[in-house]
Amino acid sequence: MINIAQFGAGRIGAIHADDLARSGDAKLLYIVDVNEAAAKAIAARTGAQVTDAKTALGDPRVHAVIIASSTDTHADLAIRAAKAGKAIFCEKPIDLSLKRVDQCLAEVEKARVPMFVGFNRRFDPSFRALHNRVAEGEIGVVEQVIISSRDPGLPPLSYLKVSGGQFRDMTIHDFDMARWLLGEEPVELFATGSALVDPQVGKLGDIDSAMVVMRTASGKLCHINNSRRATYGYDQRIEVHGSKGRLMASNHVQTSVELANEKSISTDKPLYFFLERYAEAYKAELAAFLAALKGKKRMPVSADDGRQALVLAEAALASLKSHEAVKVKELEKKFKKS
Amino acid sequence: MINIAQFGAGRIGAIHADDLARSGDAKLLYIVDVNEAAAKAIAARTGAQVTDAKTALGDPRVHAVIIASSTDTHADLAIRAAKAGKAIFCEKPIDLSLKRVDQCLAEVEKARVPMFVGFNRRFDPSFRALHNRVAEGEIGVVEQVIISSRDPGLPPLSYLKVSGGQFRDMTIHDFDMARWLLGEEPVELFATGSALVDPQVGKLGDIDSAMVVMRTASGKLCHINNSRRATYGYDQRIEVHGSKGRLMASNHVQTSVELANEKSISTDKPLYFFLERYAEAYKAELAAFLAALKGKKRMPVSADDGRQALVLAEAALASLKSHEAVKVKELEKKFKKS
Amino acid sequence: MINIAQFGAGRIGAIHADDLARSGDAKLLYIVDVNEAAAKAIAARTGAQVTDAKTALGDPRVHAVIIASSTDTHADLAIRAAKAGKAIFCEKPIDLSLKRVDQCLAEVEKARVPMFVGFNRRFDPSFRALHNRVAEGEIGVVEQVIISSRDPGLPPLSYLKVSGGQFRDMTIHDFDMARWLLGEEPVELFATGSALVDPQVGKLGDIDSAMVVMRTASGKLCHINNSRRATYGYDQRIEVHGSKGRLMASNHVQTSVELANEKSISTDKPLYFFLERYAEAYKAELAAFLAALKGKKRMPVSADDGRQALVLAEAALASLKSHEAVKVKELEKKFKKS
Amino acid sequence: MINIAQFGAGRIGAIHADDLARSGDAKLLYIVDVNEAAAKAIAARTGAQVTDAKTALGDPRVHAVIIASSTDTHADLAIRAAKAGKAIFCEKPIDLSLKRVDQCLAEVEKARVPMFVGFNRRFDPSFRALHNRVAEGEIGVVEQVIISSRDPGLPPLSYLKVSGGQFRDMTIHDFDMARWLLGEEPVELFATGSALVDPQVGKLGDIDSAMVVMRTASGKLCHINNSRRATYGYDQRIEVHGSKGRLMASNHVQTSVELANEKSISTDKPLYFFLERYAEAYKAELAAFLAALKGKKRMPVSADDGRQALVLAEAALASLKSHEAVKVKELEKKFKKS
Repeated sequence: MINIAQFGAGRIGAIHADDLARSGDAKLLYIVDVNEAAAKAIAARTGAQVTDAKTALGDPRVHAVIIASSTDTHADLAIRAAKAGKAIFCEKPIDLSLKRVDQCLAEVEKARVPMFVGFNRRFDPSFRALHNRVAEGEIGVVEQVIISSRDPGLPPLSYLKVSGGQFRDMTIHDFDMARWLLGEEPVELFATGSALVDPQVGKLGDIDSAMVVMRTASGKLCHINNSRRATYGYDQRIEVHGSKGRLMASNHVQTSVELANEKSISTDKPLYFFLERYAEAYKAELAAFLAALKGKKRMPVSADDGRQALVLAEAALASLKSHEAVKVKELEKKFKKS
Repeated sequence: MINIAQFGAGRIGAIHADDLARSGDAKLLYIVDVNEAAAKAIAARTGAQVTDAKTALGDPRVHAVIIASSTDTHADLAIRAAKAGKAIFCEKPIDLSLKRVDQCLAEVEKARVPMFVGFNRRFDPSFRALHNRVAEGEIGVVEQVIISSRDPGLPPLSYLKVSGGQFRDMTIHDFDMARWLLGEEPVELFATGSALVDPQVGKLGDIDSAMVVMRTASGKLCHINNSRRATYGYDQRIEVHGSKGRLMASNHVQTSVELANEKSISTDKPLYFFLERYAEAYKAELAAFLAALKGKKRMPVSADDGRQALVLAEAALASLKSHEAVKVKELEKKFKKS
Repeated sequence: MINIAQFGAGRIGAIHADDLARSGDAKLLYIVDVNEAAAKAIAARTGAQVTDAKTALGDPRVHAVIIASSTDTHADLAIRAAKAGKAIFCEKPIDLSLKRVDQCLAEVEKARVPMFVGFNRRFDPSFRALHNRVAEGEIGVVEQVIISSRDPGLPPLSYLKVSGGQFRDMTIHDFDMARWLLGEEPVELFATGSALVDPQVGKLGDIDSAMVVMRTASGKLCHINNSRRATYGYDQRIEVHGSKGRLMASNHVQTSVELANEKSISTDKPLYFFLERYAEAYKAELAAFLAALKGKKRMPVSADDGRQALVLAEAALASLKSHEAVKVKELEKKFKKS
Repeated sequence: MINIAQFGAGRIGAIHADDLARSGDAKLLYIVDVNEAAAKAIAARTGAQVTDAKTALGDPRVHAVIIASSTDTHADLAIRAAKAGKAIFCEKPIDLSLKRVDQCLAEVEKARVPMFVGFNRRFDPSFRALHNRVAEGEIGVVEQVIISSRDPGLPPLSYLKVSGGQFRDMTIHDFDMARWLLGEEPVELFATGSALVDPQVGKLGDIDSAMVVMRTASGKLCHINNSRRATYGYDQRIEVHGSKGRLMASNHVQTSVELANEKSISTDKPLYFFLERYAEAYKAELAAFLAALKGKKRMPVSADDGRQALVLAEAALASLKSHEAVKVKELEKKFKKS
């Protein structure tokens, strides 16, 4: 049995805690959150104890931590967990600052603790099948990847203000999908965007609609399109084109019911948002983390994967400003210098 | 917390026991099975105690029983549970003999205990949505129901010998769907069938391919087609035609991945069999049973529903032999006389 | 160039005349119709001459006739054409009376002229592909055929009065599809039906909703469901189940456009009715008739195919009345005696 | 009756000549081609006379010309036709040189003859329905357009050498779709590409795989992805995202047949290439040209539409080289200066 301390009792935290309780492989010893009511609710459901970070990290029975607290606390908690010798499951992003991510990763490496970054989409049954079938060569050599990723609705402006902007907050998932499916690092990236959903977003210096194009060293191409609003629900589709064919994963629906009447033939809308669409993915990523811990295997999504996706988000921001394609390696060098 | 004793630790029994363990509403106190190893495995997972029927039914802490043992034990266990004052969740069919079913139902009625029959398909998200949308009048007055229900493969002949035949064993689910969706009892039924999948089935006096047509008093029509084999998996589809349109529920798949290549555009096959397709339905039917118990409400699928589906199976058998449409009420009278 | 005389300048007649004009293989010499205006309209478009039956059949330049006039004139015109030595393309049905059909076929046989019956659905691209792929063994041995055939709306009662009833007028097409796809003659047939769309239909002694089940000598099963109304358009679907899989042909649509919005995902309704759905089939059947004539080959749909479909319609009528499965051969014998 | 002289008897020329013959609105008087055999074949089928450009343009009976000859002759023939006072239907592109296009358009304007550019996709039933439904406001304000456009296979290298490159030859159609659907001119464009299908293409200085992103003045975004190879056929799909939903048009297929077997559920591949997919579009564009001529109305696709798509292709080429987003207006100015 793997003993866990979890930081964060919000929406995602509740999912992880409940999935843990059902997993049979692990036990939630501690739950830590500044929102005491939320922490207590999870404690009541799972038998965990509400405590503070110090106590949780100081308990030698704790094997691993789940960091599902607010983004600005991720890096700090990860560093403290690393120093305490705990394995780490960290929600994305590790931090909004690449510099801070690098500090964090240095500490994790020094402590030689395993670290998993919660890119849940890699564990969605459809995207996983897509990836595996591409990897097995079903469509030959990959040539183009096209990712459509659209949220059902704009989050509150208060959230957007601290989100790091659309590329770091939302597109980061798509950057991870792109790297995973291309099987090769993007070397050049062009991004553009607009505030079309709500002009208030533009006043914050952010965008709510984006298009990105990337290129790898061997010439593979990748496109990402994003919007913060899709009236029909959560739009999550990926196409991979290869020398021998195309593999696509489309949206998931609640039921297979179809209505035919005087107006049209109509079917269910996509599942509403990430909690619905990725319910199975959350279970599977936690299981994968626990299985890697038990088997002392390499983490299937590493801290470096978390870092690389953020590098692409930084490149997108730079391109949005410069109206030029950004060389990813050169951008990284600049960050290291600064 | 509702305390449960469960009879049967086989394939379906394991599902119910695990769903119970996760439900939070109920506790499995006892597990009873002639196969001790199977019972012990469930006990180990759930904290239940392995015991015999007498002990389980004699414990006053037990509020309800789940009968998931072999078909020939259902009626006996249901009668004993009724006499012991326990609420009953009984897998279909209650018994293969209508006479025995009637004896059982008489005892249950006498004991005034609630009884639920496990017609899991009523709790499948797609069929439930179909039913509810029909009931809400989305397609006006129902005129025709068409049910396609095909198993992925023939069960062992040893199973078929004691199954009661295709109509009582397999079509019985479709008869329940038909009654539920027509919203009116079939009064006339014609059935035909063949042993096309395996001539051995014919030698047993059974069929493996069937077609049924039914008619209600107001003239609504219903068709059922069955096969014991579908190379592409479990084929479970329903169409309802009404005065204002058509509602259909089609198969469920594992992933939304589509491959396009030189040969064709291809997608996932339907989920393989009932364990996969109806995993959610099993959870939901148990939850519905527990909710009805807690709320002291009417069972959403009653013992009489179990009986009526068997009456239609008997009518189908009679029609298969006579090559005539059978009047359902007259057939019932004959059974009562005999 | 094949010279044609056509009887009938109505809806179907206009289609054939226009398809002829575009075919390049044939020339419409004469158009005959009691409705002179309709005949003149076709003549003006095609260069044909408006005339009467006697003149048309007496002209030795005429190689073949197209009979697309009202049903009650088909047999008489076919007999006259046969006696005049003309090849015959006859719209279905040859006649509503099996006796009269047999007289007609006897004359055609005596005259040794080729006769084609216009079962257009055999030339629909989807149904033809379905048939060919079944014939090529793609799904192994055929076991079940399921035909859904629903008109968009009820025709005028005045039409229904002279239509011969739903089985002879509408289901006859499905009987032809069944025979074609089963690859074996039905030996037993059960039919039931209701007047659900309009009680006036019932007062005429007819039905507007029907379900049929058929069985062949080797035990293959076939189901047909019909309605005179489908609010969503012309519903024309066929499933064939075999030992190695299932082939289905579904409806055709005008465009591939899909709308996703707050309510649902919606696509085009099926093409409205037979003129739209079978536009290509009408072209292809005429081309097949002309090609068979030119190549002096066997007609791809024979006069006997027209007769056999009518025999099944008669069996359906008998079953509807008797509530029993009808033995097709015995019914035929009765007709011969009478 | 509109009298036509046609230049070009190749693949597209044959389509136009045959569609003309069937249209009933126009008569093909002359067919001109350096390939005399091809010209004669069309003449034989349509009753046209084989002649040279001078004769055709000199005949005062000729109202309009169809220019479907090789690209390098388009501008010259259009100028000569304009000077002769003939209305012009010109296949895309008008010319590969923007300078030459501008000369041609100046002459056409001076002559005040109507000129239509053959962007056939605007007349595809699905894309037209998509456009009209967008225009009617069904999805609110347009925000993003995503165009997937992939050819089934690489043309011969000999063709590629004189094609003007992928952007001018292939993407030009997508640029036209983008302008038509955005309802606003792109002001900024980024393009990238690779030779992934065949390295020989790269040696020609061309690409066979491309991705483009465009932005309009109001911030609408558009993405185009192209490949010269799609093993599954001609991939022609468009998505339009608006403030109230999404409209998509997907591929067209030959039949609605679906196979289910042990491997998968599979359906028809997309129609093979432009001759199949756009057969109806070719008919409709010709009809639209003739209708505009007869009604003396504005051409539904103007010479300027032809020019603007080429401007975007030039911008794409410039961006491919510079790795920067190109301002479309500034690029146009440069061309005018040069």
